[in-house]
Amino acid sequence: MEPPTIEIPEAILEISPNFTIPDPMSAPALKWGIMGTGWAASAFADQVPKFSTGNIVAVGSRSLDRAQRFAKRNSVPQAYGSYAELAADPDVEAVYIATPHPAHHDLALLALRAGKPVLVEKSFTLNAAEAEDVFMEARVSGLFAMEAMWSRFLPHQLMARELLSSGALGDIVSISAEHGQKLDGVERLEKLELGGGALLDLGVYPVSFIQSILGNPEMVDTVGLVNPEGIDEHETIAMTYVGAIATATSTMRAKTPTTAHVSCRNGRIEFRDAFYQPGRITVFQEPLDDLMPAEAFSWTWDGHIQGGFQYQAAEVARCVNAGLTQSETMPWDDTIAVMEIMDKARAQLGVRYPTE
Amino acid sequence: MEPPTIEIPEAILEISPNFTIPDPMSAPALKWGIMGTGWAASAFADQVPKFSTGNIVAVGSRSLDRAQRFAKRNSVPQAYGSYAELAADPDVEAVYIATPHPAHHDLALLALRAGKPVLVEKSFTLNAAEAEDVFMEARVSGLFAMEAMWSRFLPHQLMARELLSSGALGDIVSISAEHGQKLDGVERLEKLELGGGALLDLGVYPVSFIQSILGNPEMVDTVGLVNPEGIDEHETIAMTYVGAIATATSTMRAKTPTTAHVSCRNGRIEFRDAFYQPGRITVFQEPLDDLMPAEAFSWTWDGHIQGGFQYQAAEVARCVNAGLTQSETMPWDDTIAVMEIMDKARAQLGVRYPTE
Repeated sequence: MEPPTIEIPEAILEISPNFTIPDPMSAPALKWGIMGTGWAASAFADQVPKFSTGNIVAVGSRSLDRAQRFAKRNSVPQAYGSYAELAADPDVEAVYIATPHPAHHDLALLALRAGKPVLVEKSFTLNAAEAEDVFMEARVSGLFAMEAMWSRFLPHQLMARELLSSGALGDIVSISAEHGQKLDGVERLEKLELGGGALLDLGVYPVSFIQSILGNPEMVDTVGLVNPEGIDEHETIAMTYVGAIATATSTMRAKTPTTAHVSCRNGRIEFRDAFYQPGRITVFQEPLDDLMPAEAFSWTWDGHIQGGFQYQAAEVARCVNAGLTQSETMPWDDTIAVMEIMDKARAQLGVRYPTE
Repeated sequence: MEPPTIEIPEAILEISPNFTIPDPMSAPALKWGIMGTGWAASAFADQVPKFSTGNIVAVGSRSLDRAQRFAKRNSVPQAYGSYAELAADPDVEAVYIATPHPAHHDLALLALRAGKPVLVEKSFTLNAAEAEDVFMEARVSGLFAMEAMWSRFLPHQLMARELLSSGALGDIVSISAEHGQKLDGVERLEKLELGGGALLDLGVYPVSFIQSILGNPEMVDTVGLVNPEGIDEHETIAMTYVGAIATATSTMRAKTPTTAHVSCRNGRIEFRDAFYQPGRITVFQEPLDDLMPAEAFSWTWDGHIQGGFQYQAAEVARCVNAGLTQSETMPWDDTIAVMEIMDKARAQLGVRYPTE
């Protein structure tokens, strides 16, 4: 299959002549083992071999039957009925952890202790303390670890961050990002012991998006709706920065537009489709240092690509190949910061998972 | 000039067979006097005679020179160098007050005491107490009074509210509305004594929009940026309801998309253009009572019309003609509620106007 062609628009090349989007097809080959057999595991098993140089060589589950069915469905050569077996497979060069959130911490430690680099689905763990634990193990063992925040590696998000950090639009004033899906009938999300609620599943996207652009907030202020079972069904997290306010809204009670925008002193970026998926951005740019600009222009770039998970997988392959323990695009500190923001939001809502 | 043609889409007629948008051209004639000579006064003087049966017969200002220049520019027959003279003009049947906010209260009382119905620019007054004062005078004198929240009367907002109250989209879960303009060089907005800041000028739109749909919130939680002069430059107001959260964001430091969306259990309405101006709405509708709907459809309705101010002016004409003291679409209680929400937001931000 042809790799998707990514054409960089003139407008960004004028600002950043060296801007490129790393091609997943040019990354070193990497043999993956997958822990978990759910939706994300399937998408990974489908997209990574199709759109990058990565291969899936094994899958592990608590149930051998489920692992075997997954392996058959996704043409994975090896299936294991335990995570430990998968971690021990000498053929597996890196482990992708796609189980429900409460298992991430233990499985990441398991894989790292078996000498395997890990890519761990978001939310990375249940809380910041668990995340620090995992990264400490990675540091001690000198192994690569990364949160699978695939969105950060998507072409339209890379381009947006490049534009914003170039200063071409002026200082950032306001970010809004929201993610709502009607998921309140999904069993996993209705159980606190499974890390249920809107935050870890949906809220992590807008929070991480904002953190990727503005860094760590001065203040976090959360308003939300918590159901009688203690599950956060809905929250708006206001993140205050020097000179800017960002809001991350998530709900599991309704489908929302799932859009985002970043407004700056002299322009803005609007994500025209679901901001966390490959899609279009429209950039509105005004001349700098002009109160009421006579001229402004806008351009839209279509960042739709097939798949999406291949970009993060290729990043892991490049980092592992280079002997790095973390990615510059999704570094440990950012994952911890995102977990800390969510910890604060939950504390403000009074939401605690049973193991906390 | 032909009145704009408003075609009601089939989809809404199926839900509400009797839904209509009142035609400004069919309202009774009304002779207006305008207090103030700024942007809103000019737009009113231009649009009302052009797109409705209303006429502008006089303009008043503290400066006779300004009033005369406004009169000449806008073909208004009479100009006064004081507001009292305008209020006393027997030819004036209703007064539109379009001065800066701090003067609204006194000028509304002046007009009412002169026996004239009033349409008062938003924000209606500086705070809820002032608003109650004005409505008390209207009640005592039996005269009509209304906040000039023109957006509430626009076709696309009428249609959105009709759809939402029909229940066709299910319960409302989330509303987001934001209004950002780069206005921090505009002198009036930089002075606290002139009611400066983002809230009264920009924030009133999203707050009133949300209040028009969900009514009065259980809780108001505000995060904002206040400059060293005590001016609110930026705020996010979270409005919590039983089962829903709405956020109203406003900033005077950046142009934002100025969009809004209302997300419900079984569908949503997205305002495709500036939500407070005439524009398009897209309605996404899913079958009710279905967790993961197989079918969903969307339709877009283009509510662009010329002008916009004529809809509120026609409402005043109809109400005055019918001997009413308030409008069902923009009733006194709603104006007071909006001012109370903004009072709470300012208290949370620590913003006080000098006269308070």
